[in-house]
Amino acid sequence: MDKRKIFFVICFATGIHCNPLFPYDLVDLTRNLGPDSIYYPTLGGYEKVIELKGSKEFGHWVYSNVLKMTEHVGTHMDAPSHFNKVGWNMHQIPINKMVGPGVIVNVKEKARNNPDYRISLNDIKEWEEKYGKIPDGAMLIMNSGWDVKYPDKYSVYGTKNMSDRTSFHHPGWHEDTISWIISNRHILFIGTDAPSFDYGQSTTFPVHILTSRENICGLENVANLDRIPPSGSIISAAGMKTVEGSGGPLRLYAMVPNSDANNSAVTIGTSNVLLVVICLTLLIKLQN
Amino acid sequence: MDKRKIFFVICFATGIHCNPLFPYDLVDLTRNLGPDSIYYPTLGGYEKVIELKGSKEFGHWVYSNVLKMTEHVGTHMDAPSHFNKVGWNMHQIPINKMVGPGVIVNVKEKARNNPDYRISLNDIKEWEEKYGKIPDGAMLIMNSGWDVKYPDKYSVYGTKNMSDRTSFHHPGWHEDTISWIISNRHILFIGTDAPSFDYGQSTTFPVHILTSRENICGLENVANLDRIPPSGSIISAAGMKTVEGSGGPLRLYAMVPNSDANNSAVTIGTSNVLLVVICLTLLIKLQN
Repeated sequence: MDKRKIFFVICFATGIHCNPLFPYDLVDLTRNLGPDSIYYPTLGGYEKVIELKGSKEFGHWVYSNVLKMTEHVGTHMDAPSHFNKVGWNMHQIPINKMVGPGVIVNVKEKARNNPDYRISLNDIKEWEEKYGKIPDGAMLIMNSGWDVKYPDKYSVYGTKNMSDRTSFHHPGWHEDTISWIISNRHILFIGTDAPSFDYGQSTTFPVHILTSRENICGLENVANLDRIPPSGSIISAAGMKTVEGSGGPLRLYAMVPNSDANNSAVTIGTSNVLLVVICLTLLIKLQN
Repeated sequence: MDKRKIFFVICFATGIHCNPLFPYDLVDLTRNLGPDSIYYPTLGGYEKVIELKGSKEFGHWVYSNVLKMTEHVGTHMDAPSHFNKVGWNMHQIPINKMVGPGVIVNVKEKARNNPDYRISLNDIKEWEEKYGKIPDGAMLIMNSGWDVKYPDKYSVYGTKNMSDRTSFHHPGWHEDTISWIISNRHILFIGTDAPSFDYGQSTTFPVHILTSRENICGLENVANLDRIPPSGSIISAAGMKTVEGSGGPLRLYAMVPNSDANNSAVTIGTSNVLLVVICLTLLIKLQN
């Protein structure tokens, strides 16, 4: 092989990197928003009223509605102002505080026979042992298996008496766990597939109070958590920019690195291995 | 240099690639949603009613509202069902049809002295000459400079008589341009910084009709388009998942490849150049 040939082989090897613009698959984490949507029973519900439907005015099909709903319905987010008088309202949350690495803590086994289960510090330590330290800016979400009960409100709240909130039973986060996380890690959102990240038996909402104080936002009634990995996704929780809003339904989704991303990494790895092999072959060949 | 030293140098050179998980900066393209928000004058407006504000019930600050609004207010999206009886409603739009490459067509100069300007096929050809073919799944958005008029509705609609829609003047897309795009390119969304992607003088809404027929969604009152590049961003337009919804306000944002992405590319490039230099140096040294 002459010098020129070798040079072209090396150029070829360095040129096979690929760089996809957006190497993620998208997973919808959102429930349908409609009259069946779950909301906290002491708040108002959801209503959609037809505003225009048909062709009278425009000579062509036009259809629109008026929405009337509590901000806290269905798959929705809590702004910090929901439980903190001086916390961010919806329009004050910077967009870069609404997107971050997904950390999904699976406690389905523990919650199955204990609807009052609260995520312990041990659950967090176990997650970190498997997947590494919770990354900065994480979207920390509990997967309790509660999504299969949705939208049967009696099953979701674990009660036959929706007007007695002391009868509610569903899992949540423990306030001691959240205190430790606030002191030792940096998260943007705390979330759950259940209707509240404070467990059903709580009437004082310590987790809401602790997180709101730190301008950490909330996610409730999250769907499809089994469809994303415990670590490695990016979660988009971009809520409406409502002036003085305390929360709102949103289209929540996860970006999961896809085969393009893997191919890209593999290709980079392969081409570098190829370069090393070429270099070593050259060395051996030319030294002999 | 002995073989082992050379081997370690090569390993070091191949090891300095970086692979950031999410190499984008986020740019908010959303207006505040409130009583000043622009909406089509024949539709209803926006209202927010306090539901809970204070500490009476819970012994701690709790705050929430009921929102009452037309689906077509502020920075919002149109579902295809808005102008197509059998088009997708909000809950039927797959999440992967709501995120795609941003294509921003700047016609600010042309619209400055002509509020009835409509984007021509020539404008599209000029964009493609500069930035390449419109990518598949594009979010195609007009930057007409109209955002500086927001939220003064008289200025946005170019009229003193909001009840006479034949007096409206603002730029839009030309139906011939959209017909060509539908036949020759593949886009997910059509958008504008003005209040409608049909220009103000239209009373028949041909662009809405053409796009809705193809299940192409719409974006209106888009903000901050000057802050993202004409090409190369990814736009997230994830609307509420309203059952039978015709549209809705959303938190629209762009992901713009950032310095991490550039650094990553630069690092990969640098390390490969380094490898090539090492290989050629070896060749020359060892052949002499």
